[in-house]
Order: sequence, then structure tokens, then C-alpha cells
Amino acid sequence: MNISMDSISVEKEAIEKMKGCGDLHKTIKLVPSDAEERKRQISEEVAKLLELKAKLGDDSQKTKFVLKCPKGTRDYNPQQMAIREGVFNTIIKCFKRHGAETIDTPVFELKETLTGKYGEDSKLIYDLKDQGGELLSLRYDLTVPFARYLAMNKIQNVKRYHIAKVYRRDNPAMTRGRFREFYQCDFDIAGQYDAMIPDAECVKLVSEILNQLDLGEYIIKINHRKVLDGMFAACGVPDDKFRGACSAVDKLDKTFWDDVRAEMIQEKGIDPIAVDKIGKYVELKGRTELIDKLLEDEAMKAQKSAVEGLEDLRVLFKYLELYGITDKVVFDLSLARGLDYYTGVIYEAILQGFAHNPKAGADGDESVSVGSVAGGGRYDGLVGMFDSKGKKVPCVGVSIGVERVFAIMESRALASNTKTRTTETEVYVVSAQKNLVEERMKICKELWDADIKTEQSYKRNPKALDQFQYCETNSIPIAIIIGGSEIEMGVVTLRIVGSREERTVQREKMVEEIKSVLANLN
Amino acid sequence: MNISMDSISVEKEAIEKMKGCGDLHKTIKLVPSDAEERKRQISEEVAKLLELKAKLGDDSQKTKFVLKCPKGTRDYNPQQMAIREGVFNTIIKCFKRHGAETIDTPVFELKETLTGKYGEDSKLIYDLKDQGGELLSLRYDLTVPFARYLAMNKIQNVKRYHIAKVYRRDNPAMTRGRFREFYQCDFDIAGQYDAMIPDAECVKLVSEILNQLDLGEYIIKINHRKVLDGMFAACGVPDDKFRGACSAVDKLDKTFWDDVRAEMIQEKGIDPIAVDKIGKYVELKGRTELIDKLLEDEAMKAQKSAVEGLEDLRVLFKYLELYGITDKVVFDLSLARGLDYYTGVIYEAILQGFAHNPKAGADGDESVSVGSVAGGGRYDGLVGMFDSKGKKVPCVGVSIGVERVFAIMESRALASNTKTRTTETEVYVVSAQKNLVEERMKICKELWDADIKTEQSYKRNPKALDQFQYCETNSIPIAIIIGGSEIEMGVVTLRIVGSREERTVQREKMVEEIKSVLANLN
Repeated sequence: MNISMDSISVEKEAIEKMKGCGDLHKTIKLVPSDAEERKRQISEEVAKLLELKAKLGDDSQKTKFVLKCPKGTRDYNPQQMAIREGVFNTIIKCFKRHGAETIDTPVFELKETLTGKYGEDSKLIYDLKDQGGELLSLRYDLTVPFARYLAMNKIQNVKRYHIAKVYRRDNPAMTRGRFREFYQCDFDIAGQYDAMIPDAECVKLVSEILNQLDLGEYIIKINHRKVLDGMFAACGVPDDKFRGACSAVDKLDKTFWDDVRAEMIQEKGIDPIAVDKIGKYVELKGRTELIDKLLEDEAMKAQKSAVEGLEDLRVLFKYLELYGITDKVVFDLSLARGLDYYTGVIYEAILQGFAHNPKAGADGDESVSVGSVAGGGRYDGLVGMFDSKGKKVPCVGVSIGVERVFAIMESRALASNTKTRTTETEVYVVSAQKNLVEERMKICKELWDADIKTEQSYKRNPKALDQFQYCETNSIPIAIIIGGSEIEMGVVTLRIVGSREERTVQREKMVEEIKSVLANLN
Repeated sequence: MNISMDSISVEKEAIEKMKGCGDLHKTIKLVPSDAEERKRQISEEVAKLLELKAKLGDDSQKTKFVLKCPKGTRDYNPQQMAIREGVFNTIIKCFKRHGAETIDTPVFELKETLTGKYGEDSKLIYDLKDQGGELLSLRYDLTVPFARYLAMNKIQNVKRYHIAKVYRRDNPAMTRGRFREFYQCDFDIAGQYDAMIPDAECVKLVSEILNQLDLGEYIIKINHRKVLDGMFAACGVPDDKFRGACSAVDKLDKTFWDDVRAEMIQEKGIDPIAVDKIGKYVELKGRTELIDKLLEDEAMKAQKSAVEGLEDLRVLFKYLELYGITDKVVFDLSLARGLDYYTGVIYEAILQGFAHNPKAGADGDESVSVGSVAGGGRYDGLVGMFDSKGKKVPCVGVSIGVERVFAIMESRALASNTKTRTTETEVYVVSAQKNLVEERMKICKELWDADIKTEQSYKRNPKALDQFQYCETNSIPIAIIIGGSEIEMGVVTLRIVGSREERTVQREKMVEEIKSVLANLN
């Protein structure tokens, strides 16, 4: 199969080349004279063509590479990496505070592992070329690989985080942090436990992360799949239209009710009377008093599913009160979340500084609401899809939208005009005269071996000014300066780069002195 | 193009299906009777086929998933991740000690970016399927993306490290740390500097990393591309056979000289007299005395390239002496390193505990020598290949073979039977009686908010024994125990899990007391 694919691509290449030569072919005008004349004419034309081809060859050599990253992807430069590391460290600290372990899975999975997990979005999966052997696809999220991992290793309980890149052939909107290659940052609790205890911890964790990232005010919207299903039933939507209604309601955070209403009636074929009833419910927002009110609602309390969901939420809100985050959460009946696999509580954190903007959908950015930075919920059925006996492992988790966080942090760094340090160098070894590279090397060795972060110029005889400039540009706190007189006296000059204050230090006290200066600087 | 590729793949699918039905087709035996009879027969056969198809469908549902990672890849479980993190932290600390920044690049590149960089090995590149848009390939190493990044951003000087996964469709030997998806861990210095200063730092860095990873005795072999070229010329090998000779010599760390000799003569077409001269040189190992000896060698000193290379090495060995690592390095004329792009000094670190084993090649493991854990060299031409004007940026770097390091660490952990902690949990909150989940939650909130790593059971009424067991299994140092009497008296019981020593602590002193116990434990 591999060979036939190769020959196809060779053929394709040949066809492309022939297209490129289209104009040249037209220049051959065969005159119906004697055979000799024909041959001569052909030879001439061939020579011309070869000449033209040679010229084209030269041209194409000049532009021999398109220097770019693939569409929807980016390099991270050192400044961006420093921001990225800071964000990850904060998040990982929170994950570890809650006792999570970490795992990693391959960047690609067997194609069939991903098949049938993402509904319509499956068209966005990157497939690998069939080069013989297994058919592979790049991972689309971290949840399906996690479920595969649990089923494959027959793991019943785990609390794990996973930070890795995932891939979607989507329309990128890179300025707003939407890429084709992007990080996901997931925390999940798997296991058969009592209601709402792990769920409440996930919500608490989200609030800790958002507090510590210091992104400004936020609210965590909460809803429940069973409440949604009960609500649809209470409004008279037939069972088989729940998912359609749900995916329409999901758009309420980025579009107007009128559009959602039209979609439900025209595309999903739901009775307008039912839709208008839904319209009344999805306006509702509140906390425990709203839960109590809905448990008294005649239409809702007739639905077993709605009552179960509301009872769950009552327990959840009790726990969230104990966790001291009642003011950060709201029960919001318009929260639907698209993914099919959710079965219980769902939640989504919205930054208030990036307020609800129903027009954001206009430029095609339909899959993320503007201020959404975290989301998740309970999915009790997914692992069972991978088990040969369908054995279920209940799971609840949360995914932090770190690309959005990076974008906010990057624009902040840009606005504040503060320089992010991209190295941690503590000492720069400067030679004030020529021919001291070997002395510099001895000092560097001593400092490296004492675990002091040290750099020097890679030139034999660098200019003094260049060396000091390097220290200042790179915010290196200390310069150790040597010249002929220092070497003669067995000393070095220690300069505090910030204040330009200098002192003479005995060579054998150098390491000690540097460590004490660094301790005071920090 | 997309459409035509799609139709090709649809056709391929159809052909595959037809092959699968081969046996069934044979069952249709058309009898040349009248048309009605023919139709009846066909209908019958179609019905049989549909029935068979339905059965096949059911079967395939039973084994609906092959639960595995793609060939040559693996999941990392929490124990492996803990080891991996430890190794990376040690290495990153060394990189930062030398003032390196870090960057990241996408996991895939435009296919043409990788074209023509890996010679024969290009067949091992993973391509992505053509799903419309750009043609993409998974990165094969981090050096070519680095060169692309430098050229694209017109960067003349940088010292960066990059730790990321790369992809090769190779024959995996997973027990020895050879995978199709594996980490590379690269440090490179780019810039126009004076001879051997950055090169010496790379070698020093390798020795620091190997010392700190504590992998046992090692030796860093050093050679120079110009010395190799000069040596081939001195032996009478024609210029156009240098690369072939070089790739044969490269195999000396895993096979016998006789095999290498045969390859040079039979496959590379090199004169046996020249080959035997090469055989004498590649036996040579030494330090500065060998450099001096070769500079006196009549055949070698007639070669400009050899003299240049040897002069470089003389400076390098001087610097390595200043860096205090003369005993860790050896000038070894048999070191060749396969990659075409090296232009100057080359080096490779070999663990002595995993000694030279010329028979290792027998089972097909031909591309890594047994004990090789780091390697690199100077490549002054690669960045120029990406620049439209061919502008060069000289580079020297080193790549740490971390998968090999992981494999060693994992087998050590297994052998020593010590348990690697996979979480950092400091406190487990235990309820000694029923119905205390809400009290536990209050305590957890208090501890999380005080930045203490805390866990509790996700059950409402967990058994006391299960909770203590969890602490011991997971090496959690402290348990905070609450029961009815503790709550009544406004206290908690603090238990040191290791010693099982218990003390009563006032509830309002709990955080303070835990912090002081933790400080003493560490």
C-alpha cells in the first residue's frame, strides 16, 4: 500500500510540473513539412525549453525555503517561554496541593481510539499519512487518552494532572489565543466515590488557580446535565432532541437568545412553545435559593432527572460554602457545554474583565466564549467505552485554558513595558584587559563548580564596554572583573551591576562573597 | 488537490473492502439460464452476503477497541514521570547555570523544511496526511527546527536549550530506551565567536550533567571533522569518498574493524591500501601528546585540513584542562558521528558501566552505541541552508540522550526496590467517626488556603483503617484526625505517620503546628 501511495504522489508531482509548463508547450508549433525539418524544429524548441527550465531552476533556488511555522502554530521565544513557565508553575503547584500525580501519553493515538468520541468535530482531527503499519491520529484532547490509559491499565482510582499539547485543524484566531497546536492542562479525579465530594474539590481547585494567576474578577458558572435534561423534558422537548437543544443552548454565551431560539425551531425542529418555555428557564441564575425554587417548580419536580440533578447541586453548593467560595460561583441554567460525554455537574469559569460579548461570534470564533478560562464536569461513561466489558470508572475533571492565560499575560507584559528575564545568570566574568581568557575560564570553572550561574564572553578579547552592556541588558546582578593588577594581587573586583558599586575581594574569598551578595539581593 | 486525494482514499477503501470480500464473490456462480433465474440467483446471493456482512459487523463490535499505544511509543505512569521530572530538573539546572534561555517550536514543520537535511534517514520521517492545506511532517530532531527558527527570526547570537519529543519511524528497541517518540534535550550556542571557547563550554557542560545525574564513570570521546577529512586524504582516499569512509568509521563503536574494513572496500570502493592506513590511525587514542605526535606525522602534516583540526584540538584541550576535566576526555580518532552537518569538533559521552560491545549491532540496534548518553559538535553551515542569501550562523551544541538516562534510572529504581513518591501530599485529613465529612472539608479548606498540600477521602464515611493505610502507602508524613471528642474540645489530633506518634493540638494552632512539624521533617 505504501508503494502505491508513493507512486500516486510521484504522479501528482508530474501533473503539477506539466501544468507549470503549460505556456511553454504552446510555443511548439509543428509545421507539416518534411521529417528532417520537423526534427530540426523540435530540437530547437527542446533546446529553448531546456534553457527556460534552467532559468526557472535558478529562480526557484533563490526562494528555496518558505521560512514559516505551519498554519495555526507558533514558536515560543525565550520571553514567551518565561511567561509560559510561570503560568505552568503556578498551576502545577495548585494541582500538587490537591495531591495529584502526573502522567503522559504519546502525541498520537491509534486512529480508532479517537473514532466516535468527538461527534461532528472529528473532522478537525489531524491524521498521519499511511506509511505502512498502524493508522495514527494526533490527539485531539487529553481526556480520551486518559480514558484509554485507565481502561488499558485497569485503573479504578487516580487523581492525575496532564499538561501537554493537543491538535485541532480548526480556524485559528491566534491573537486571541486560539491555535491548531495548543496546550491543555487537565486535572481529573477517577473513582467510585460519594456524590459531589470530588466535584466540589474540582471547583475549589479552579478558584485557587484563578486567584493565584491573578487574572482579575471571575465567576464560575455551574449547571448539571440532569437538570438540563429535566428542563428540556419539562418544556416538552422529546428525548431524542435533548442533545440538539443542548448544543443550541451552549451558544448562549456568545450569541443572542433570538438566534438560539431560531436554531432550535428551524434546525433542531423543536416546537416553538417548548422553545419559549426553555427561554424562561435559561434566564435563571442564582444559588441555593434558585435550587429550592426549581425543586418547587411544578414542571421541574415532575421530572426525576431534574430532581436528581437539583439534589446533587444542593449538596455541591453546601460543600462550596464550606470551601468558602460561594461568592465565586453561580448556578446558571444557560450553561450547557458542548461535549456529549458529560453526565453530571458541569462548570465553566469566566473572566469578568472580558465580559459577555454576544457579537464575538460574528468573525467566526464560535467555539470559545470570550472570557472562558477553565471548564469541566463529570463524565461517568467515557472509560467504559474502552473497556471490553463496558466496566465504568466515574470521572470528574477540569481543563484550564492556558493559551488564553498566556495571551493575557503576554499582552500585560507588553503593556507594562517591563522586561521579563529569560536567563537566571548571577555572575558575568569580565576581563578588563587583553589576553585574559584563560584567567576568565579558571574563574568560571570555580563558580560553576560552586553552583553559581555564570557566563562570560565567547571572544578571546572582548571590549570592556560590550561586557558591561551585556550585564545590564540581561539584568545580571554581579560582574567579576579581572585585569593585570587584580591578578598580580590575587584579588578580583566585584561589581554590583545595578548600583555600579565596586569592591575588591580576595580571590579565595570570591565564592563566599558572591553567595553573600546574592543572598542579600534576593 | 484535497478532493482528488479524498477520492483516491475512497477508492483505496473500496478496493480494500473488495479484497476482504474475495471469498464471498467466488460463491456467486452464475448459471447461464434465463434472465429471471439469473436475477433470482443474484438476489439470493446478495441476501447471503448482507447476512454475512451483518455477522462481521457484530464480531467487530465485540473487539471494538485495540487498547494499546502506537508501536514504539509508551505512556509514562506517575512513577516514570517522577523519574523523568527529576532527570529534567537536574539537566535544566545545568543549562541555566551556563546562562541558557529556552525556546519551543511546533511538533510538526512544513515538510519542505525537513527535506534534504537527514540524507538516507529521511525515510524515517513521519508525514501527516494531506487533509488540504500545507504538507506537514513531525520533527525528526530539534536541530533543524532550531536552525529554521534562527534563520526565520534573523537571530545571530543565542544560547538556548530545548527539551521536547521528536519522532522517527525506526525499529524500536524499547527495553534499551529506543522509541519512535522520544525526548531530545539540546543545548546550543549560536554566534560568531573565537575558536573553541563555546566548544569547550559544551564539553564542560556535558561533564557537569553526567556528574550530577550520577550515572557512574564515563569518558567523553573527542574528534574533529577536519582531522577525519585530513586523515582520509593522508591515507589516499579521494575527496568524494570522505563521507562514505566517515559513515563506515562511525560504526566502530558497535562493530569490529574487520567489518568496517570490508564495508569500506566492498561497499564504498576504497582502495585496500588506503583502508589499512586508516586502520592504523583509528586505533589511536590520547590527549595533547597524541595531538603533538600527529602534527609531526609526515602524512598528516601535509594535509591543511588535518593541521587546522589538530590546532583547534590543541586549544580545546588547553581549555578543558582549565575547566578541570582532562581526566574525563580523550582524543579518539575512531569517533566519526554520522550526521553530515558537522563541520568542526565532535564529541560523544560513553558510560563505562555499559562497555563497548561490538556485538550489539547483531540484533539490529545499529544507530546508538550501547553506553552513549550525550553527543554533539559544531555545525557552521546548517542555518545558512535556511537563509535566502545563505548567511551563515556558526553553531555548536550537545544533545543529552535522556531516554537512555530514564531507562537506567528506571531499572535502578526497580532494582533498589525503593518506592518513588509520585505526590507531594503533606497532610491527610482523617475522620475517626461517621458524618464528619463537612468538618474534614473545613479543615482541608484551611490547610489549602495556608498552602499546605492536603488530601482527604472522597467518601462520606471512610473506614479509619483505609484512611491510615492510604497515608502509609503514599508516604504522607502527617495525619490530622478528628472525632466527636476533638470537635467538642476544639482540638485535632496530629499524628506523625512514620512514628505513629500523636499529639493533641488546639484547632487555632493547627496550621502553625503542621508547618513546624514539616520544617523539622525536611
